[in-house]
Amino acid sequence: MGVHQYFKSLSDLELIIRCPGKFKFQEHSVASHSFKVTKIAQFLGTVEEESGQNVNWKSLYEKALNHDYAELFTGDIKTPVKYASKELKKLFGEVEEEMTRSFIEKEFPTEFQAIYLERLKEGKDETLEGRILSVADKVDLLYESFGEIQKDNPEPLFIEIYEEALRTILIYQDMNCVEYFLKHILTDMLSERFTEHDELTGITVRIIEERGN
Amino acid sequence: MGVHQYFKSLSDLELIIRCPGKFKFQEHSVASHSFKVTKIAQFLGTVEEESGQNVNWKSLYEKALNHDYAELFTGDIKTPVKYASKELKKLFGEVEEEMTRSFIEKEFPTEFQAIYLERLKEGKDETLEGRILSVADKVDLLYESFGEIQKDNPEPLFIEIYEEALRTILIYQDMNCVEYFLKHILTDMLSERFTEHDELTGITVRIIEERGN
Amino acid sequence: MGVHQYFKSLSDLELIIRCPGKFKFQEHSVASHSFKVTKIAQFLGTVEEESGQNVNWKSLYEKALNHDYAELFTGDIKTPVKYASKELKKLFGEVEEEMTRSFIEKEFPTEFQAIYLERLKEGKDETLEGRILSVADKVDLLYESFGEIQKDNPEPLFIEIYEEALRTILIYQDMNCVEYFLKHILTDMLSERFTEHDELTGITVRIIEERGN
Amino acid sequence: MGVHQYFKSLSDLELIIRCPGKFKFQEHSVASHSFKVTKIAQFLGTVEEESGQNVNWKSLYEKALNHDYAELFTGDIKTPVKYASKELKKLFGEVEEEMTRSFIEKEFPTEFQAIYLERLKEGKDETLEGRILSVADKVDLLYESFGEIQKDNPEPLFIEIYEEALRTILIYQDMNCVEYFLKHILTDMLSERFTEHDELTGITVRIIEERGN
Amino acid sequence: MGVHQYFKSLSDLELIIRCPGKFKFQEHSVASHSFKVTKIAQFLGTVEEESGQNVNWKSLYEKALNHDYAELFTGDIKTPVKYASKELKKLFGEVEEEMTRSFIEKEFPTEFQAIYLERLKEGKDETLEGRILSVADKVDLLYESFGEIQKDNPEPLFIEIYEEALRTILIYQDMNCVEYFLKHILTDMLSERFTEHDELTGITVRIIEERGN
Amino acid sequence: MGVHQYFKSLSDLELIIRCPGKFKFQEHSVASHSFKVTKIAQFLGTVEEESGQNVNWKSLYEKALNHDYAELFTGDIKTPVKYASKELKKLFGEVEEEMTRSFIEKEFPTEFQAIYLERLKEGKDETLEGRILSVADKVDLLYESFGEIQKDNPEPLFIEIYEEALRTILIYQDMNCVEYFLKHILTDMLSERFTEHDELTGITVRIIEERGN
Repeated sequence: MGVHQYFKSLSDLELIIRCPGKFKFQEHSVASHSFKVTKIAQFLGTVEEESGQNVNWKSLYEKALNHDYAELFTGDIKTPVKYASKELKKLFGEVEEEMTRSFIEKEFPTEFQAIYLERLKEGKDETLEGRILSVADKVDLLYESFGEIQKDNPEPLFIEIYEEALRTILIYQDMNCVEYFLKHILTDMLSERFTEHDELTGITVRIIEERGN
Repeated sequence: MGVHQYFKSLSDLELIIRCPGKFKFQEHSVASHSFKVTKIAQFLGTVEEESGQNVNWKSLYEKALNHDYAELFTGDIKTPVKYASKELKKLFGEVEEEMTRSFIEKEFPTEFQAIYLERLKEGKDETLEGRILSVADKVDLLYESFGEIQKDNPEPLFIEIYEEALRTILIYQDMNCVEYFLKHILTDMLSERFTEHDELTGITVRIIEERGN
Repeated sequence: MGVHQYFKSLSDLELIIRCPGKFKFQEHSVASHSFKVTKIAQFLGTVEEESGQNVNWKSLYEKALNHDYAELFTGDIKTPVKYASKELKKLFGEVEEEMTRSFIEKEFPTEFQAIYLERLKEGKDETLEGRILSVADKVDLLYESFGEIQKDNPEPLFIEIYEEALRTILIYQDMNCVEYFLKHILTDMLSERFTEHDELTGITVRIIEERGN
Repeated sequence: MGVHQYFKSLSDLELIIRCPGKFKFQEHSVASHSFKVTKIAQFLGTVEEESGQNVNWKSLYEKALNHDYAELFTGDIKTPVKYASKELKKLFGEVEEEMTRSFIEKEFPTEFQAIYLERLKEGKDETLEGRILSVADKVDLLYESFGEIQKDNPEPLFIEIYEEALRTILIYQDMNCVEYFLKHILTDMLSERFTEHDELTGITVRIIEERGN
Repeated sequence: MGVHQYFKSLSDLELIIRCPGKFKFQEHSVASHSFKVTKIAQFLGTVEEESGQNVNWKSLYEKALNHDYAELFTGDIKTPVKYASKELKKLFGEVEEEMTRSFIEKEFPTEFQAIYLERLKEGKDETLEGRILSVADKVDLLYESFGEIQKDNPEPLFIEIYEEALRTILIYQDMNCVEYFLKHILTDMLSERFTEHDELTGITVRIIEERGN
Repeated sequence: MGVHQYFKSLSDLELIIRCPGKFKFQEHSVASHSFKVTKIAQFLGTVEEESGQNVNWKSLYEKALNHDYAELFTGDIKTPVKYASKELKKLFGEVEEEMTRSFIEKEFPTEFQAIYLERLKEGKDETLEGRILSVADKVDLLYESFGEIQKDNPEPLFIEIYEEALRTILIYQDMNCVEYFLKHILTDMLSERFTEHDELTGITVRIIEERGN
């Protein structure tokens, strides 16, 4: 009952650990992930702006800050489940939307409801800001999986996550910020010292070449 | 590829923490929960046997040990999501079943597939053993929520979980083991020293009386 | 060398735990805190906007996101040390600024240096956005200390932090968002169930009355 | 006083961490270990049954579930201490038995005492089920030490544990389930990707050859 | 082989957690406990010196620093096991001594062996320093159990530990430092704010009165 | 108010984690570090004594036990901040001293104040005991960083810490205990099995040779 419940819920996001059920050297919460994605989106937006694009900063920050808030209601559902069938995915989307709406209507005073319905809806649309969010989300995932690979986590899942994240980033390779990321940031990441070095460089080169980059 | 993957997956169950996104003083993994449910089912089965029922122990142990194994594939999905609509629940059940089958067909040699398909299917059926499992699962949940309430966890969710678990146990109040539990075990639990004592005793008495016990 | 180092540093903020050296039931990292402060600032900004103020959202988000980034360089310095003398505080400010500048000049390409020097400088100025940040920072601190008090943390420090945070918020009581917070949110917080209830309500009422509110 | 104490004690087994005093990347509790040993014993029993052996499943599950329950009373005593002298080992066995008996007589109602005295006694006897338990216990220990070695734990103790576990399994190499384990599971384990690969494969081959396998 | 092994072993003492198998809000390692006991012994020794006693500081520090080092070899053995029978206790003492000697002879160069055999032997003898160690060890245990009781740990064991620690301290009530502790420190401890206050003050007064203090 | 506050503060030292803001496989508290430094100083003092030096044991133990106690007041301040300027360093020293004095005057009875002012002051002076403390502090830091390097921590900071610790130890290479450490202990450390072996041995040899050892 009230914005107090909303403020309190922010702390629950500190208690949802990403990628449960797999051994990780360093854990990341949904709260920390949301912070990092927003900071990464800030940089990517800056690159776009420097390249002459017009960035709607208010929209970009709103999208990035809130993009995983609905995990509060649904919990951590494994990707293969979510995408098991088109029908299930659609139903899921509807349930998520319904739970978010129901929370807003229960906790927020009438005058703020429309604003928060807008803020908490799916942000990865086809606008420039939605596309920056899609990239920023995967850049943080790339860093999370890179962190495990660099520490020699023997679980092959993290190589798969790294690959999937990189492939998704490449879908947006026409964007200035992706071009910048691939050219200046990814190369520095790969020149870090670690054991599996050759394997990861190999995978990265292969994925990028596949896209005919 | 192979039973090795199955053995390794057991350790992943140690890394799925129950009830994510809520502050807990003591965390419980799916592996520990499965152990405790099996031990509780063993006691409840013994009560049934002492009362003259014929317990199929092989079946009871199989049901209890494996009842949450599928969380390996689906992750921890919050109950309100799972039960948001009949349609979603049905689809979920199908996806869970499909993922389990696909895992078994991929990892187990042909000669063991039929046995494990049987073992890993939903165990809470209408047999005596399925009913004991339903009770044992909720008894452990009752203990988990009781542990938080006793340590003064201010989160009201744990009172709700306690209530929901007790209500489910009472659905089976015609069973000897439930009668025994209510009479001998729950009373001892409630006489433990703790702060919220009055509130919890009140809730318990009210729920039991509602059922016209 | 490069933006990669900046992206990597975000993960280090997940590893700086606030309020070290005191027993806490729930720990909070600088990354999570930054996320929560930004979300709280978003709500407070919305209240200001609804009240007819003109909010510079780009500036507000930048201030909130980055307000504790410099802890990366200085570590967690206890407040009494920081404020032990005017001279020390001034020197500290200079060292912090110097370290931030030196990091930016080392890691960022020339074209982004001016932007990041602006972004990472102290944000709590006398603009509307700077004042919202000052309030949001203390609201999260209030929630952190409230969380400990509600769980019966016997350490008196958390009562002191709660008091100090509330006093600071009251400095800004002419703002619409503070009025809203005191009237609608703080009252809901204090009506939560917990043991020390009377003491905390008493302290809150006393502090607010002292300010002749 | 009562079965409630017994149910509550199950949660204490979640708080006894195996192999204390040594750095581990992943910790395992006695509760989780008991779960995994029971699941492994289930598979090994299935192999025996498929090979024409007659498995007493009720006995096998009882032995596996309860095999470390007495650690509740004695705590974690390091193996070299336990086996320092025949006399000490014998005295230990007596104390453990006495404490278990005393717990059962204190907490269990008379009608269940005989059953639980039987259930909680040492299960590693010369029956087929006792032998399966001996193997399953060491297979889980092998996986625990393998997990550390695969993550590059520099502590030589885990190589020693791996060796000791494998040697003990080989004592039972006339069993169908051990033959299956060596041929189908251990080989898959050793083909996992990890750094110390050569060393571990070498050790394994040497130990197996020593036994004239 | 060598002093390097001895230095490395100090870090293993950071990984032995005291009182395993019981839920604790705050965990304490053997390394931290040893530090606190030495600091407490330093204060108690100062009280004795101020009262005119002659304190052998070199001996007191050696006793306090090393008093739990042998747990490295034996692990954490629960007190009731250790004291189950006189015979077992004696055997245990012998095994502990033998393991310590064997470690010293293996790792230390000949010229240091006599010194370390002396240093690592049981320190709680009838000298003034041995008696101060006995008191300091129990004062830290009292603080550890007090910390749990003050945080409302519902486990009755911590009340038992508190009682046992206080009773042992009272055995030494003829000592100046114990008189000081009871008069000046214990009274301040009991005037801390916490919920179970009355119960703990009651227990304390009763125990002290029983001893005819 | 009283020695009780001092005793309680020892437990706060268990909650200050060294080197915050960097990923570590094994964390170390200020309490554990103080224990290890005191034990290492004990050994180094023994080497000095064997070499004919006269060691003031009471002073050595006091210095080692208390050398980081002031972190209780100042928190963990990163080294580059502390040493950013001579002026800042001097001011810091004054603040630290002032806070320690203020704590002693507030908590300790008059008769113990002079003793504790002496005990809690900076111990790394030019006496033999002060020099042994300087070496022991860095030997533990060397072990802490070695532990991370040996576990393949990819963070270059730990190589830097290792180097800095070793360089500081070499400043004291005219001492018998440093000679002993370099000849007998460091060599054993470097012959441990681990991946980065060559790199670390190379660094060590280079640093030692630079000093014309």
